[in-house]
Amino acid sequence: MTINPDQQAEIAALKAGVTPTRRATVPALEDLLYDAMPVLDHGFVRVIDYMGDDAAVVQAARVSYGRGTKKVQEDRGLIRYLMRHWHSTPFEMAEIKLHVKLPIFVARQWIRHRTANVNEYSARYSILDKEFYLPAPEHLAAQSASNRQGRDAVIEGEAAERVMALLREDAERTYGDYLWLLNEDETGAPVDPDRPGLARELARMNLTLNTYTQWYWKTDLHNFMNFLRLRADAHAQYEIRAYADVLLDVLKAWVPLSFEAFMEYRMDAVTLSATALVIIRRMLAGETVTRETSGLSLREWNELQAVLGA
Amino acid sequence: MTINPDQQAEIAALKAGVTPTRRATVPALEDLLYDAMPVLDHGFVRVIDYMGDDAAVVQAARVSYGRGTKKVQEDRGLIRYLMRHWHSTPFEMAEIKLHVKLPIFVARQWIRHRTANVNEYSARYSILDKEFYLPAPEHLAAQSASNRQGRDAVIEGEAAERVMALLREDAERTYGDYLWLLNEDETGAPVDPDRPGLARELARMNLTLNTYTQWYWKTDLHNFMNFLRLRADAHAQYEIRAYADVLLDVLKAWVPLSFEAFMEYRMDAVTLSATALVIIRRMLAGETVTRETSGLSLREWNELQAVLGA
Amino acid sequence: MTINPDQQAEIAALKAGVTPTRRATVPALEDLLYDAMPVLDHGFVRVIDYMGDDAAVVQAARVSYGRGTKKVQEDRGLIRYLMRHWHSTPFEMAEIKLHVKLPIFVARQWIRHRTANVNEYSARYSILDKEFYLPAPEHLAAQSASNRQGRDAVIEGEAAERVMALLREDAERTYGDYLWLLNEDETGAPVDPDRPGLARELARMNLTLNTYTQWYWKTDLHNFMNFLRLRADAHAQYEIRAYADVLLDVLKAWVPLSFEAFMEYRMDAVTLSATALVIIRRMLAGETVTRETSGLSLREWNELQAVLGA
Amino acid sequence: MTINPDQQAEIAALKAGVTPTRRATVPALEDLLYDAMPVLDHGFVRVIDYMGDDAAVVQAARVSYGRGTKKVQEDRGLIRYLMRHWHSTPFEMAEIKLHVKLPIFVARQWIRHRTANVNEYSARYSILDKEFYLPAPEHLAAQSASNRQGRDAVIEGEAAERVMALLREDAERTYGDYLWLLNEDETGAPVDPDRPGLARELARMNLTLNTYTQWYWKTDLHNFMNFLRLRADAHAQYEIRAYADVLLDVLKAWVPLSFEAFMEYRMDAVTLSATALVIIRRMLAGETVTRETSGLSLREWNELQAVLGA
Repeated sequence: MTINPDQQAEIAALKAGVTPTRRATVPALEDLLYDAMPVLDHGFVRVIDYMGDDAAVVQAARVSYGRGTKKVQEDRGLIRYLMRHWHSTPFEMAEIKLHVKLPIFVARQWIRHRTANVNEYSARYSILDKEFYLPAPEHLAAQSASNRQGRDAVIEGEAAERVMALLREDAERTYGDYLWLLNEDETGAPVDPDRPGLARELARMNLTLNTYTQWYWKTDLHNFMNFLRLRADAHAQYEIRAYADVLLDVLKAWVPLSFEAFMEYRMDAVTLSATALVIIRRMLAGETVTRETSGLSLREWNELQAVLGA
Repeated sequence: MTINPDQQAEIAALKAGVTPTRRATVPALEDLLYDAMPVLDHGFVRVIDYMGDDAAVVQAARVSYGRGTKKVQEDRGLIRYLMRHWHSTPFEMAEIKLHVKLPIFVARQWIRHRTANVNEYSARYSILDKEFYLPAPEHLAAQSASNRQGRDAVIEGEAAERVMALLREDAERTYGDYLWLLNEDETGAPVDPDRPGLARELARMNLTLNTYTQWYWKTDLHNFMNFLRLRADAHAQYEIRAYADVLLDVLKAWVPLSFEAFMEYRMDAVTLSATALVIIRRMLAGETVTRETSGLSLREWNELQAVLGA
Repeated sequence: MTINPDQQAEIAALKAGVTPTRRATVPALEDLLYDAMPVLDHGFVRVIDYMGDDAAVVQAARVSYGRGTKKVQEDRGLIRYLMRHWHSTPFEMAEIKLHVKLPIFVARQWIRHRTANVNEYSARYSILDKEFYLPAPEHLAAQSASNRQGRDAVIEGEAAERVMALLREDAERTYGDYLWLLNEDETGAPVDPDRPGLARELARMNLTLNTYTQWYWKTDLHNFMNFLRLRADAHAQYEIRAYADVLLDVLKAWVPLSFEAFMEYRMDAVTLSATALVIIRRMLAGETVTRETSGLSLREWNELQAVLGA
Repeated sequence: MTINPDQQAEIAALKAGVTPTRRATVPALEDLLYDAMPVLDHGFVRVIDYMGDDAAVVQAARVSYGRGTKKVQEDRGLIRYLMRHWHSTPFEMAEIKLHVKLPIFVARQWIRHRTANVNEYSARYSILDKEFYLPAPEHLAAQSASNRQGRDAVIEGEAAERVMALLREDAERTYGDYLWLLNEDETGAPVDPDRPGLARELARMNLTLNTYTQWYWKTDLHNFMNFLRLRADAHAQYEIRAYADVLLDVLKAWVPLSFEAFMEYRMDAVTLSATALVIIRRMLAGETVTRETSGLSLREWNELQAVLGA
């Protein structure tokens, strides 16, 4: 993560500015505010602003005139009830805004979550920094043979070195050529006065997909949890999961009761198909159910075995 | 507007609670926070929470590390530029949450704005208050003969009295019968122990559309302005416009620069069709253009005359 | 359901018009097209148009140049895989458009599904028909004592007669007064030339919430199934469930493979919380788990017992 | 545009398959169905499916039982009225689905239109084709000095040759290295059995942003026109405008009356700010208004002069 001194000073200035407010405030999240939490080799997540807390969920569910909260135990019970029964609208009443730096190929997955607001740094207008993602050795994984969108063992030794060298060289060369096409340096200063620079909106096409971009991203608590459910999942690509993992900590600091309910009823919960439910009932009645008598495909049978910890 | 002492106390408690925050804060909106601003005979708007200010628009547009703002004059210029050129995403980076009490027929127009979050008081679960909208004398308008969805002159005298009496009687009778069906009083206390009460989810069907409901409603600044553009317009039904007018004041207190740009480029702006533009060019070139030579239908010609103040 | 002869003729004309198309076509849904399928006492659902079929889901998932389908068995497997793993975007590639007649209080629940397109018959512009929902005797339920948004036993005998009489009288009186306020009859013909009619946009406020309205409603297959999952559920209010039940048949006729997967992995599936999953693992390992040793609240314990058929 | 013989055969098979339907059908659009309309050097747009026509707009606006259309002249008038007065919901009642091949940097602009359904070809799962966008000589523009997101004169001669050579070399090298990383050829066949291939989800990061991707994209008529208004505009980047221009022809073939209204009231219309409107009134009243007396900034004054053709 490269944050230059000017940027550090801007962040420090924001952190130092404290004003009084009548709004709901979350001290644990205030502590995190504006800090750049590192992700991957050059990325980060910064919490820029938030609206509401656990009580805002309760308040909206009760359409109350005041805070709407009662005893902590009752609020906790209501939040768990709402989560369990898919009453999503009260969770839409809290909002969070992030500043994220992330590789373009991760940004392309992230943007598929449409119920959010986004302002991306414009490479049509500005020059991108010379920063690109290169996997850490432990994440340089081979293609899985069994799962076409999965990873297998880590590539090591000389093979790994060749892969890394090639990724680095290609990113550096294309970035260097990007600057040459622009006829500008990284700060936007012109280089060769006798040569026209290619339009920025065109030159950017020469960059590789591991180049870092950045954006402001804002969403409500409900859609934030939807994002986390999919992107903190073991099947998500590691590079976006790294962001989701950091954001799970943000969720916990922000709305601890909602976080707890989210883990219990979404993240660590399982969905059983109609057929799987029948199998479990048969098992609990003492029957020995086999793959052959289960009515499940081999793949679903294996998935069920994994769920049951068998 | 009927806010009972318990509710007043809850509101006062919220107003009294002040905590420090590192977030962007708007003193002029803090002053309004939680207060019930009256609308129509029993309705209100309360600002419950907000995220961001004018600077948040600028900050997002610049994807900046700090506040992102420069001189006020530059921020103002950027906000006007964004508004003029329909760059809507930076305006999505601020958010507002309201508590609104409104007649059901107004709620049914309001809910057509889909890009918002809503939690409505549930008449499936709770008993609605005995409050229904009755137009003030100056709003008791006759049907327009020329515009099927418009109003004409105000109905006055005995005719007005009969209308008002009938609206009041029907609302009171159906509300009374609603309580009888529930076999409960307004507080939910059972009335006749020997008679079953009709399910609340059914009994509510006996209420008239001027019964007041209430909800929490949250949206971003961009969609808030879209709502205002349509609902503060002269063609909007008076009863929803009354809410929009109050909300224009909220907008002004919250984001004065965005408000100013909104009035200049949306609310008080006009759209000229391709043909109307040609007409104006012809006029400015000295030609006398008539309805016959304009190429416009009579209705559009009249609309253009109105726009030009002719 | 009252469809007048003119409307019947219009429907018949639509059914008779057959043209050739190169688009994907579903004969079983073509058979249903335009017919008014009755719901409740005066409501209906009509399928007006559709786009795509089961193969459209497969085609989009494969981003294929042609139909994209392989053997039926493979398509079925892919659709089940997509449903099981919450890959929702391919299901968004099919679309359906309905014409629905429904009581206003049902419309207010229905409209909470925001990812849909809606055009409602405007009572600001036109006069509503004299049609209001009155529950059939078997649906005239008492309020549940244990569940504030639930129903209990059916109200019968004299008590039922009084309820029905009151609902009918109030609806008829308020409708009659609505026409009096308008000073028009149901066809829009003026009644008393010496008296101004109240503006339509105002007069409608005198109608009760069981008055029927109608709208065109269009959504994609994914959101259609989301709607059905919530509204065909046993906890949904009967009056909207009646519509969802008819629409389940439409779903089955339209996309039989998606319907089958939807029933298996959504409608008849269950979600187990993290704690419930641990309990089942303990049970399958031979342990006798009781409410006390389960770690669940009484309510969740009872819900789990119900799921397990115990 | 490279469509291989297998793909051509699939397209031909789709075009040959004709079935009867009771749905609204548009012969002019049926003629275009499935054909790959070329855009840029390797891209295309294909219309895969559609729902509704001009009459569907009218039908929804009238919430009618039949086709809802009257005389063509009346339908045209209604559609123009709806467009002029921003009644957008009837235009949401028609839908279109496209298959698009486009450079990744264009896809990243396109996806910012959120009210649409998208299925993109997955480079996590599959291997991308060796196809990348290289500007035609007349589009190889220099950076504008006055407008940071604009283009200036075309780069020509030797300078152009060097730019083109560099873009081509970098794209070819990074693509070649992508295959080497995968240890597969373009068809997915393994190359070197003694070396592990990098996971596809990682290897793709080595591709440049001008690599072509493809997706299915579906939206409603209202949002389709919104897309065109922004992307067929002279200020849009040429590369996405090239797609919008082809889609304008699709719009015209599909819904000629809506297309005509769209051009009149959106595409070729102008919005005048409150201040600009006052200026025009002053001018029409005979006053000579100058930049100094206008109250406009220089930039806005110049924009107004351009609008007025001065």
